Amino acid sequence: MIEAQKQIHLWLKENKEHGVRFLQRLVQENSVRGNENKAQAIIIEKCRELGLSLDIWEINRDQLKQHPFFFANREDFAGNPNVAAVLSGSGGGRSLLLNGHIDVVPEGNLSDWTMDPYSGNIKDGKLFGRGASDMKGGTVSLLLAIEALKKLGIRLKGDLIFQSVIEEESGGAGTLSAVIRGYKADGAIIPEPTDMKFFPKQQGSMWFRINIQGKAAHGGTRYHGVSAIDKAYEVIHVIKELEANRNKRITDPLYDGIPIPIPINIGKIYSGTWPSSVPDLAIIEGRMGVAPGEKMFNAEKELEGVLEQLKQSDRWFRDYPPSIEWFGARWHPAEVDLDNPLIETTSSVYKKVTGQLPIIEASPWGTDGGILTEWGDTPVLVFGPGAAEAAHHTDEYIDLQAIFVAAEVIALTAIEWCGLEGGPTSDPGND
Amino acid sequence: MIEAQKQIHLWLKENKEHGVRFLQRLVQENSVRGNENKAQAIIIEKCRELGLSLDIWEINRDQLKQHPFFFANREDFAGNPNVAAVLSGSGGGRSLLLNGHIDVVPEGNLSDWTMDPYSGNIKDGKLFGRGASDMKGGTVSLLLAIEALKKLGIRLKGDLIFQSVIEEESGGAGTLSAVIRGYKADGAIIPEPTDMKFFPKQQGSMWFRINIQGKAAHGGTRYHGVSAIDKAYEVIHVIKELEANRNKRITDPLYDGIPIPIPINIGKIYSGTWPSSVPDLAIIEGRMGVAPGEKMFNAEKELEGVLEQLKQSDRWFRDYPPSIEWFGARWHPAEVDLDNPLIETTSSVYKKVTGQLPIIEASPWGTDGGILTEWGDTPVLVFGPGAAEAAHHTDEYIDLQAIFVAAEVIALTAIEWCGLEGGPTSDPGND
Repeated sequence: MIEAQKQIHLWLKENKEHGVRFLQRLVQENSVRGNENKAQAIIIEKCRELGLSLDIWEINRDQLKQHPFFFANREDFAGNPNVAAVLSGSGGGRSLLLNGHIDVVPEGNLSDWTMDPYSGNIKDGKLFGRGASDMKGGTVSLLLAIEALKKLGIRLKGDLIFQSVIEEESGGAGTLSAVIRGYKADGAIIPEPTDMKFFPKQQGSMWFRINIQGKAAHGGTRYHGVSAIDKAYEVIHVIKELEANRNKRITDPLYDGIPIPIPINIGKIYSGTWPSSVPDLAIIEGRMGVAPGEKMFNAEKELEGVLEQLKQSDRWFRDYPPSIEWFGARWHPAEVDLDNPLIETTSSVYKKVTGQLPIIEASPWGTDGGILTEWGDTPVLVFGPGAAEAAHHTDEYIDLQAIFVAAEVIALTAIEWCGLEGGPTSDPGND
Repeated sequence: MIEAQKQIHLWLKENKEHGVRFLQRLVQENSVRGNENKAQAIIIEKCRELGLSLDIWEINRDQLKQHPFFFANREDFAGNPNVAAVLSGSGGGRSLLLNGHIDVVPEGNLSDWTMDPYSGNIKDGKLFGRGASDMKGGTVSLLLAIEALKKLGIRLKGDLIFQSVIEEESGGAGTLSAVIRGYKADGAIIPEPTDMKFFPKQQGSMWFRINIQGKAAHGGTRYHGVSAIDKAYEVIHVIKELEANRNKRITDPLYDGIPIPIPINIGKIYSGTWPSSVPDLAIIEGRMGVAPGEKMFNAEKELEGVLEQLKQSDRWFRDYPPSIEWFGARWHPAEVDLDNPLIETTSSVYKKVTGQLPIIEASPWGTDGGILTEWGDTPVLVFGPGAAEAAHHTDEYIDLQAIFVAAEVIALTAIEWCGLEGGPTSDPGND
């Protein structure tokens, strides 16, 4: 292992330029939703070059649409495949799934970028562009780890399963499709942008839209109307109370120091069409955080419950109850215990590579880990080189050095977890 | 006078069909902003037929644009003239200005109408269509009053000045242009839809837009951001306090029983673009009521003052102060004393015609009366046959009977106010 570590460290050092150019190519290929195929082609080319067993398939909407975890308002997945590539082990070891998503969020307002969002420009050790941190940089760490093992002739007992999926940013249909196709493992790493922290637990989330009615009137006689803006504020108030109550229940020490472990964010309000009219409709949209271990359904019921209570305390709401709709994407929460062997193994490797123990936290956002854990029965660690603050932002970037540190941690974890062919097994199940 | 009253009453009774058809033609001619010319042509035709001295002119934007009362975001008034028509008196009497506006507000959402907004349909004694109440019905009362006097050969001492102006619904440039052209009088009646009430005082109003900044963050770490929606509600809160304080100062008995004499209405709020982001900008728009006798400028300063105070009490607002913009149309407040001879004369006529004293209130909205009183030095009574609840609404209508009662009141007021040629003068100044 010490020998392997030295070899891998050296190989990554010698292949820095190679890895950076590969990331640059990936970032330069805009892979927003519906446009993932060209970036996937680069991934496929690399997997072929590495001699992995390739599986390339399009998501079958008809097959998934009844699934309780399925969400996608996208009708057509044709031409933009999921990719899985397996480095088969010699047998007798644990399998490790390495999952990255190829889709990126839209670049937003172009004028807010100081450069072309798909430039892949490099400056001061950072590579810039949409998807650099979230999460093409993480995907490159995965592929560099596999490439190092291959090139160094290090053979594993357990299977190493690489995935490049679509649709993570829009509800996880890509990973769900992979799970249903049979891709499960003894453990998984998802290198989302965690700033190299370990997230064994991830907050889930779901979106809601609430319609609040008012009664129109002329502004000069506003007392003849009921302001939907005022009523919306009352709704927001009880949602804030619910948020406080839900967060009081969070006792997990991973959330120590987090001001609001599972926030409910009011992200939008739209009401009114005319300055001198009392608005008769307000629409608020928000995101409800769901605690690791909590069922989405129960969280939904809690929010619906406080709206129901408003009907008891307010005559207007009794006659015109606010209506709620759960819409858009949702991310399931996930958790593995801190003493899960996957966490222990990866932590110990991390310490060997960096000299320090990892910072372990609960993530404030969801990932495809929820689907893998909840539906694929695969324990997941979310850990990656990207900068959390850069994800989804203008001038997104990644610190290039972190990509290679993460690749080293992942390659060595693969060895520890899957076992070295011919070496001592670290899987108690094979003793 | 008793003889004249009988004659006028009879003439109006005999000309009911004639008056209703005239209103129907006017309503059927859509005269939304920029499209007033065809309805004005009908008015002009009628004034010609009555042998009035016609003055037809287009508003000169360049002439008005520096005027402190000028507001119009309309660049081009060409082809849509103002109309004034004078029935000259024989001399020695008070002049009376009869002002109606020909522009109507847009019909709004067509699917909310149960009929064509320009049908002029008649049902159950009501005539339906955009502008029926606001205020083509009132204009028809004015013209019927003049026609009755003409047809009955009743000649006045003072001038009777009829006006059909554009732009009332958009800030009053039509009436302002007429005032600047020299049209002033000893008294004026504006037959806006008052439900036959007398409004010797009118609330003014002006629109504001406030931009409130926040700080964006991911909804899952919303504590790293500052919600513009939350900050907007703090701004709304101090505006509500200001509204309460301003209304405490209103002691005019005309406002007895009015819950909020001069409301500040928050008509719109727009904030946020993504459910799971903390919104970094909120925009609220509203209408500030201005008390009769109050200066617009002082009201502006009061609202700006409470925003300024927020900077003292709130660190965020100190660094990111909300910005206010006064935009869109504005209507100046106006008032005449209850013992003004115009009110006394019209009240006494009203009692003769209807058997009851008029209900006297302060109007909850502005009219062109503010411009006439403040800039044209002309005392104004707002009184008309239209239904206040129908104005600006879908399925706008007017009670046809009220048009003829109003016409009778106006014709007799003209006689009392301007004096009958050869009859005893009622103008003390001529004693």
